[in-house]
Formats: sequence, structure tokens, C-alpha cells
Amino acid sequence: MADVRILEIKQSVFADNDRQAEELRRELKEKGVFLLNLMSSPGSGKTTTLMRTIEAIGEKVRIGVMEADIDSDVDARTIAKSGAKVIQLHTGGMCHLDAAMTRQGLEGLETGDVELAILENVGNLVCPAEFDTGACKNAMILSVPEGDDKPLKYPLMFSICDVVLINKIDVLPYFDFDMEKCVKNIHMRNPEAKVIPICAKTGEGIDKWADWLMEQRKIWRG
Amino acid sequence: MADVRILEIKQSVFADNDRQAEELRRELKEKGVFLLNLMSSPGSGKTTTLMRTIEAIGEKVRIGVMEADIDSDVDARTIAKSGAKVIQLHTGGMCHLDAAMTRQGLEGLETGDVELAILENVGNLVCPAEFDTGACKNAMILSVPEGDDKPLKYPLMFSICDVVLINKIDVLPYFDFDMEKCVKNIHMRNPEAKVIPICAKTGEGIDKWADWLMEQRKIWRG
Repeated sequence: MADVRILEIKQSVFADNDRQAEELRRELKEKGVFLLNLMSSPGSGKTTTLMRTIEAIGEKVRIGVMEADIDSDVDARTIAKSGAKVIQLHTGGMCHLDAAMTRQGLEGLETGDVELAILENVGNLVCPAEFDTGACKNAMILSVPEGDDKPLKYPLMFSICDVVLINKIDVLPYFDFDMEKCVKNIHMRNPEAKVIPICAKTGEGIDKWADWLMEQRKIWRG
Repeated sequence: MADVRILEIKQSVFADNDRQAEELRRELKEKGVFLLNLMSSPGSGKTTTLMRTIEAIGEKVRIGVMEADIDSDVDARTIAKSGAKVIQLHTGGMCHLDAAMTRQGLEGLETGDVELAILENVGNLVCPAEFDTGACKNAMILSVPEGDDKPLKYPLMFSICDVVLINKIDVLPYFDFDMEKCVKNIHMRNPEAKVIPICAKTGEGIDKWADWLMEQRKIWRG
């Protein structure tokens, strides 16, 4: 298998991350690159969901993926199989990406022909929520085995996400997970959040997620 | 249901966390309190595992539990049902606990008669690994739905833990999880790590974990 490119991200020195993020968003708008920031706990299924997303809309928009991890390149190798443009970002131990780090990633990805750039953030429900990456939309995945109470414990993450994908619904019969309660907990944190149950493994619900994503990009392009 | 005590932890001001941790460990030794630091991703089953642990050894040693979360008191309420001493710690948005924060928690718990204190750290595979809490031993849980590749992506967490519990083995048939590969990945990061497969839901393997914990406390007491 071909090697994937690995970029060692430098820790950024900007104190004013919010301004850096706004600046990046403005530049992306000019270039016509829609940036999605995808977050979740470790092992919630970010990479598998991205594979399904590329399958669903990869022929309609040119997709570029940034896989952020502290170490390893297993996720970028997986995405590379889809044929999508991909780069592995190593965060040097950092638990999140900020706007300046995301900018380094986008430069490494070489977004010239990319219409939809997706950042798979570090697996973490706490720190990534605290840093605006400059993305146009924030998405998160909560998987069924993690439990329906997570919005109670990680309020900020749920409050900053435009969409919450509830993944691994194929294993609902084996876990004590109350879908109705979960949606209620999410909306307590964020009444505006769109909630989409999916199964990245089987593809269930991916059409709804892909439709939402394409619609958001359309609205953003104006 | 009786209310549980909630302690708002103050962010600590000590730059020299390693020295604070050594100092706390020395004091705990003097008081005969064995402190275990339990870490994992969100939703890996820390609280359910603690309930089983209290069931298994709660009559042999007096247990006190500190439940750290950014918000909510759902975990402390669960532990309170076991009859064990418990306090909910709110970290004020912080993604981890350091030694000074752990000290505040222990003071809040009032460890006078406690022989085994357990800190359920914030659900996060990155940041908690970077801060010595002053614990005598570090334990972590990796659950089957998270995947066997996690030691590749979160190297520090696996390298600092004395024991790794692989939880939710009851759902092994429904996930692509290779136990042999997982143990190999763990030992690549930490050849000394003890690995114990468990199912906190059914109680499988909890005896081995309880034996390990009691043995470690015995060795520590000398």
C-alpha cells in the first residue's frame, strides 16, 4: 500500500485564536473551500463515517481529508483506500487543533482543487470543543456504546456542534441506550442541533447525513 | 434519592505538578490510603466497573470514590447506590485532574476512614495521561466498541497505566475487535502493563481485576 503523507503540526503561538479562526473562514470562503470539523470520543467511528461520506458524495464534490492524531497513520491509510485526497496530521501530543494548526493542515493538504475539506479532529470530547478551528460547520459523532448521558457530562461539545450523528445504531439491542432520552439531552444543551442516527458500518442513515452536508455547503456558498 | 455532595474544584496554580504528586503520594502512604487513578474514553464503563469493584471488595476494604466530570452528578448518584462513600468533583471545564486538584478532591471526600480511594478521572484518553495525580497506581479501561487500534493513537495513556481493563467483552461478536492484536498493541506501548478482559455489565473477569487491585495494595503497604 502506498505511504500516506504525514505532517508534523507545530504548536501555534497565537493567543487570539478566535480572530485567527475568523480570518481562516474568510479565506476559505474566497477559495470556495467548505471546511467541516468532525469531532468525537476515541473509537466512535469518525473514519468509517468519512469512508461512507466519500462513497455517498465523493463524485459530486472534490473531498480532501485531514486526519489528526497524536501518533500513527492508520486512519489516513484507511481514507487513502477511498481514493480521496488525504493527509495525516500529527499533533505532537496536543489534544486538539486550533485555527493556526488547521491552517497548517490545509496547506499540507494542498486544497487547490478541494471543494469540501474535512478535519477529523483528535478523539476527545473536551478540548477540541474549546478551540474554533475556522471550520464552516462543526459535526460530532456520539456512538451508542458510549451511552445516552454524554450530553450531560460534556456540555460544551454538544453546544457548539451544528449536527450530532448517533452512530452504531446496529448494536442498539445490546446496549442500554434510550434514543429519545439522548435526543432530549442533546437538545437541552443545544436546541438547534440536528440529530441524525446512522450506522457507518452498514450505511444506514448516511443518505440523510450526506444530504444535510450538501445542503449546508449550498447555503454557505449562497 | 439522596443528593450527593458536589465539590467545585479550583484550577491549581502549581507549576511543579510532579513534585506536588510525589508529596501527595508520600502523605497518602503515611495515612494508609491507597489511591487508584482510573482513566478511559467517555462511555468506556468506568462507573459500572467501579460498581462491580465495590461489590467484589467493598466488604474487605473501606472504599471512597471521587467522580470527576465537567458537569452533572449522574455518576456519583450511581455510586451512592452501592453504599460506598462518594463525592462528585466538577472540574470547571478542565479536561484532566492534576495532583493539587486531586488533593482538593481527597479533602472533600474526607478520607479519614478510607483505605482505598478511587479517582474516576475525566473521560479523555489524552490530557489525563499528562498529569501525575499522586495516585499509587494508574488504571485504564479500553472498551471493545472503541477498537483494538487505540494504543497506536493514544500512546502516552497506554504507556503510563499499570493495568488495562478491556471492557464490554460481551459484545465481541458484534464488533471487529481482535483481542490478540489489541494486547500486542498495548504491550508495544507498555510491555509491563497487565491486561485483564472484563465485562462490567455481567461481572465477567471482575474477580481477576479485584485480585490484582488487592494485591497491589498489599505490595504498596509492604
